[in-house]
Parts: sequence; structure tokens; C-alpha cells
Amino acid sequence: MTRYSPLTPPPRLLMGPGPINCYPRVLSAMSTQLVGQYDPVMTGYMNEVMALYREVFNTKNQQTFLVDGTSRAGIEAVLVSAIEPGDKVLVPIFGRFGHLLAEIAERADAEVHTIEVPWGEVFTAEQIETAIKEVQPKMLAIVQGDTSTTMLQPLADIGAICEAHDVLFYCDATASVAGNPLEVDAWKLDAVSVGLQKCLGGPSGSAPITLSDKFVKTVRTRHHVEAGIRDEHHQSARGPRIRSNYFDLPMIMDYWGDERLNHHTEAATMLYCARECARVHLEEGQEQVIARHKVAGDAMLAGIQAMGLRPFGDLKHKMNNVVGVYIPDEVDGEAVRETLLLQFNIEIGTSFGPLKGKIWRIGTMGYNARQDAVLNTLQSLETVLRMQGMTLPAGAGVDAALSTYAEAANA
Amino acid sequence: MTRYSPLTPPPRLLMGPGPINCYPRVLSAMSTQLVGQYDPVMTGYMNEVMALYREVFNTKNQQTFLVDGTSRAGIEAVLVSAIEPGDKVLVPIFGRFGHLLAEIAERADAEVHTIEVPWGEVFTAEQIETAIKEVQPKMLAIVQGDTSTTMLQPLADIGAICEAHDVLFYCDATASVAGNPLEVDAWKLDAVSVGLQKCLGGPSGSAPITLSDKFVKTVRTRHHVEAGIRDEHHQSARGPRIRSNYFDLPMIMDYWGDERLNHHTEAATMLYCARECARVHLEEGQEQVIARHKVAGDAMLAGIQAMGLRPFGDLKHKMNNVVGVYIPDEVDGEAVRETLLLQFNIEIGTSFGPLKGKIWRIGTMGYNARQDAVLNTLQSLETVLRMQGMTLPAGAGVDAALSTYAEAANA
Repeated sequence: MTRYSPLTPPPRLLMGPGPINCYPRVLSAMSTQLVGQYDPVMTGYMNEVMALYREVFNTKNQQTFLVDGTSRAGIEAVLVSAIEPGDKVLVPIFGRFGHLLAEIAERADAEVHTIEVPWGEVFTAEQIETAIKEVQPKMLAIVQGDTSTTMLQPLADIGAICEAHDVLFYCDATASVAGNPLEVDAWKLDAVSVGLQKCLGGPSGSAPITLSDKFVKTVRTRHHVEAGIRDEHHQSARGPRIRSNYFDLPMIMDYWGDERLNHHTEAATMLYCARECARVHLEEGQEQVIARHKVAGDAMLAGIQAMGLRPFGDLKHKMNNVVGVYIPDEVDGEAVRETLLLQFNIEIGTSFGPLKGKIWRIGTMGYNARQDAVLNTLQSLETVLRMQGMTLPAGAGVDAALSTYAEAANA
Repeated sequence: MTRYSPLTPPPRLLMGPGPINCYPRVLSAMSTQLVGQYDPVMTGYMNEVMALYREVFNTKNQQTFLVDGTSRAGIEAVLVSAIEPGDKVLVPIFGRFGHLLAEIAERADAEVHTIEVPWGEVFTAEQIETAIKEVQPKMLAIVQGDTSTTMLQPLADIGAICEAHDVLFYCDATASVAGNPLEVDAWKLDAVSVGLQKCLGGPSGSAPITLSDKFVKTVRTRHHVEAGIRDEHHQSARGPRIRSNYFDLPMIMDYWGDERLNHHTEAATMLYCARECARVHLEEGQEQVIARHKVAGDAMLAGIQAMGLRPFGDLKHKMNNVVGVYIPDEVDGEAVRETLLLQFNIEIGTSFGPLKGKIWRIGTMGYNARQDAVLNTLQSLETVLRMQGMTLPAGAGVDAALSTYAEAANA
């Protein structure tokens, strides 16, 4: 018989590409006792979550709610609900999560067309427009911030292109939301999905999404009500049925909407969590939170450069909340990470695919987009690199970060 | 700008068919700060969760882990991973959740065959064997405890039948696990999925599952590694690709296994939760927990009957943890529920489908399988029925429940 001790994890400072440490208020919210699924208190919380995430997403979209799963559950719900077998989907890929969008669309039997730029770059609006003209897809699916490369794809000019060509515009903004601007209505996005575990400062496990009226109209053509709760008002089966029950967005909309048709049992604790993440974010203020991520990211970058380390990728398009750092030739990248973790309780990230073994990724997200977290990480990295035999200008990283913070305070 | 107050839900006593109140220890566990996804502490917790749920499921199955979503996410993961389009699946339906299994299998393009008994009954092993012989399915998919009818399907004799006919034996035990016996290995089950929100005393949002070696071998024939993390060791694509990325069990096994191949970002808080649910359950002891559910269910049933109310269905096959109660003709069922909720902070359940408006469902699950919860519910129900104009023998319900507890203590 196994028993195991109570949860007593070490107090890690999570400075990787996410997940990161939760805001303390978010942790507290998750220990709140439950109410029933159709309790007026619960449906009230559901409506509040919809309103709060409309603010987070900067949208008026009625259909703004949670998918119960990790951020890739949100992605799959959007794609599998919209795509009918044979539909053309265009996926511009600039990192690992572009590959993921293509893979999920392929499994939904879309005809997937991809364009790629080298890791560390982003697309121009012209490149995307050219591909849209050539492919004439039903949907454009693109990542906003891809932590695998630290790049932030500009989206502001793409919505108008999609609109002109009658293309649904979907974006996975999991890694970028709340740390970088995201203007769903102004940028004419039709669907956006995110997660809580990056700049929103929660754990993975709930995927807020927002859907434009145009997107909703498209997926509603495939609306089927579940057997067992069908009645004379809910018979309509039109387009081919969505292949997933769990990710059937029209059914989930009927559950979050006034109809309250039974679907899954809402993951109440993760709903409490998502609600508190949004409250923390909006109470501090979106612009303030993004500015806090910007200065933390700038300070980390300045510190890295002052230490003589080289950042990865096109810095004009770097996300605020993560930086890639070339691993110096003279050190063992994994040994550095392990010493930071086990001796300093600081986690920084490794990399995937073409960058594996070549760069570390250091994040400054959510609760950890803080001066003390940046300074502590830079000092500890300097110490560990010195332990590995490197010669570094003493204190140069932390001094540069302090200067960045001082300049920001005076600006 | 909307803000909304901190979470201050009323202290409901959740005596419906689930979700129910969480064990306090489970709530505390969910406010634990995170560690990183590949931190040795986290992978250690993942291994502990696998070991703990092997005990909960009474199995030696290596592949015992969590699907990140509600209990229907676990169902869909099992079905969509096993079913190739055209595969025959037999679903014996004795309530709403049988319809759900059939619906999910249909969306996976299975050739679904169903047999049904009236709500309130269960199947004999002979009925199931006859249908297996006739249909010759690849899989039998059945619910153990269907809260929509309160019935518990006997499973002990079905495994041998499935084995003799080379049929995969899958069971959704969400509502029954931890409140009723479930012997995965002894009963020769090939796949079982559950949720936390019933007798395990947690919130919805994580779906523990266990898979036999035979089931694993079947789904492994469709193993595809995700683009972007493929290398020379992970090329093999054999059977038709599983249609869902999120629910691709071979990929999720590679994430939980020694390979630790990246898939989703584990919902860490729900993993903490699932771990604590299992610890609470196993520390009290499985037999003791089931006995506690049995006496609470017996006491509730005795109380209901002593009040002159009529229970629903075949009581020989009633689940320990929920009872259906015919709504007396002279009262408004929904008004009774509303008064119980708003004036007594007690939630009892309504019903679906053919039982809608005809029965209430009263649960005694997990943390709420307690004497005080049973007594309080019976007293309050008596008071509310009296408020609605019914004449009842004063205190008969609570006295009968007290007697049941006294007899159990003396047995």
C-alpha cells in the first residue's frame, strides 16, 4: 500500500517559458468550496467569467467562455468545431506551436497548407496575404507568441486581409496574452484561444476562448443537440456533425448560454481560478500589466546582454515575456539548468526542435514579471556560469537590469 | 469596466447526484504553489498519482494516469483512441450516460449497436452475452453507476464474457468509483475512466483512467508522434491516426511514461487535487470508505421511506451513493428544491429525460457521506414538505436514519 507525503514542493522560482508561479490570490481562490453546477451562484460566476474575459480579450463577443482542459484543448475545440473534412486551412509556422496547429487541423481532416519562416523570425502581412490569395483557405490559423522561438507575430494588419478574402481568422494567443497587446475586435480576429499558465498567472487546465459572430454562425451550421436531452425545441441537425462531443463548441455555448443545456460538469475549481486570474489582471490594469511585462523583459534582456550572452532571434519581434539565450560554448547547458534548479530553486527553460541544446529560454511572466525575480535570476545565472568556469564581468547583468528599471521609473 | 467581488459562495451542502463538496484536505492541496512541468518533483508526483490510482482502481495496469478535462474527456479519450471508423461498438444503455457513450462512439464513426432496459433496471450478464454474440463488437462500452437512474450495473461476470469473445471491455465508472466496489483486474476490465466530483470528493476537471495491456496494445497500433518532436527513434506511424491530438492516448502515455515526450502542459493544480483525493480515500481505506457510503445511502433510503416517500428503481441494484425519490403529487418539485437551496443551503438534484419532473435525486457522496449531512438533509426535506402543505409523521425520517446508523455501529 502506497501512501506518500502531503504536498510539500520546494519553493521554485519558475523563470522558464511557462508554466510559472501562480499569483497568491489565484492559489487562494482555488481552495474555495464548491457550489452546485446550476446553482444561481454558479451560473452567476459563469456570466462574470464571460464578462471578465471579454475585457481581457478586448472584445464585445458574446461567446467568450472557458473550455475545460489545457490550452491545447482550446485550440482543438476551435479547429475541430470549424473544420469540415476537406476544408482548406492555412497555417503560417514560425515555431513549434505552428506545427501543433497544423497537426490538429490535419487530424480534423482539413486540407492543411503551411508556409514557414526560419525560427527566430515572423511573417510580414504581405507574405500572409500572398498565401491567402494562393490557397483561398476557409481559415487562417496562426500563433501570436510562440515560446519555442520567443517571437511575437504582428497581427494588427492581418484581420483586414482575412476579411477581404472571407477567411476565418483564428489565433492561439496562449503564451502572449496579458503580457503583450491583444486586441480581438480591433484586429478583427474571429477566434482566439489562450491558457492561464503564462502571463495570466494561473495553472494550466482551463482555456478561455472568444468567438466572433461570424465564427459562431459558421459552427452553428453544424449544431446537433446531444441524445437524451433533445426535445421539440432542439432537433436541428444541419451540417456534418462535429466529430468531438467534448469539443463541440455549439453545445458548449448552449451550456454557457441562457439555455443552460447540460453538457460537461463544469470544472468549478478551474473556473474559480480563471475568474481570479482575470480579476487580478484587470484590477492591476491591462496596460499596467503589459508595461510590467515589458520592463521585466527589457531588464532581463539588458542583463543577459551585459553579461556577454547573446539573445536569440529578431529582437524587434521578441515577446515581452520570454527571451532566448544562446548557451555559451564553454558550458554544459543542462548542467547549468540543473544547478540553478537544485541549488538556487530557479527554473529556466530548455528548447525544442532546431534550437534544442542551443538556447535557454528565460521567462518573466505573470506573478514573476517582478524586479526581484529578474535580479535574483540574473545573479544566480552569473554565479552558476562562474561555477562552470566562465569569466564574467562581476555584477554586470544585475546592474544593467537595475538600470533598466530605474530608466522605466523615470520615464 | 467590470470587477466583481472576491469569491464568497454560500456554504451549500451538496446532496445532489454530484458534484459534491470537496474534502477540506483536497481544497487545501489545490492552493499549493506550482513547480515546473519537468521538475523532478513534478514527475515524482506524476509517478505517485499513477501508483495511487492503481490502488483506487484495484489494478496492476502500468497505464494508469490522468486525462486533463472533465470525466467526459476521459470517456472520449478512451473511445476515440480505440475506435477506428467502422469498428463495431456495443453500448448497453440503462440511463443518460449510456446514451452519452453511444453518442461519443458515433462521432468517432463507430458502427454503434445499442441494447436498452427501462430506466430503473440493469442488464443481466446473459443479456449482454447474447448481444455480444449477435453484434461481435470490437468493444463493449458500459456505465457502472448511472446517476440518471441511480442504478449500479453488475460487472463482475461480464469480463469473462468479453474475454471469451475477444471484445475490449470499457466502463465509465465516474459516478460509482469509491462509493461502490470496482475491481478492475478481478473483473477483467480493459479500460476504465472516472472523475473526481462524486465519491472521490474533488471538483470536476481531471479524469483518472486505467488501461489494460491488451487495450494499450490495440491503441499503440495507431501510434503517431507529433510533428516537431519526431526524431529517428519516434517515426513509427502504423494504423490510421487517432483523430484527436488532445485525446491521443498513446501520446499521453509517452508523456506520463519514462520518455516524457512533450504533449499538453499538465494541469498541475488538478493533478495535486487528484493526488489528494486518492490519498484521502486510501488513508481512510477503500473498504471503510465504501462502507461509509453504504450506511449513508442506507440511512438516506430508510429515512425517505419512513417519511412515506417512494424510492425509484430496482433497489437491489441501487448505487450506494444516490437515491431517486418520487416527487409526491401534492408538491411542486422545483419549489421544494429551491426552498431547500435558498433557505437551508442544501442542494438536491432534479432529473433528466423520462424522469424529468418525476423524481428528485439525493446523493450521499465523498465528504458528504456523513451522518450529520444525512440527518440534516432529511430534517430539512421534512420541514420543506410541511411548508408545502404535506402531512408527514414528525421526525420519522431522521429517526429511521439514526436507527440505520445505530444498527451499522452494532453490526
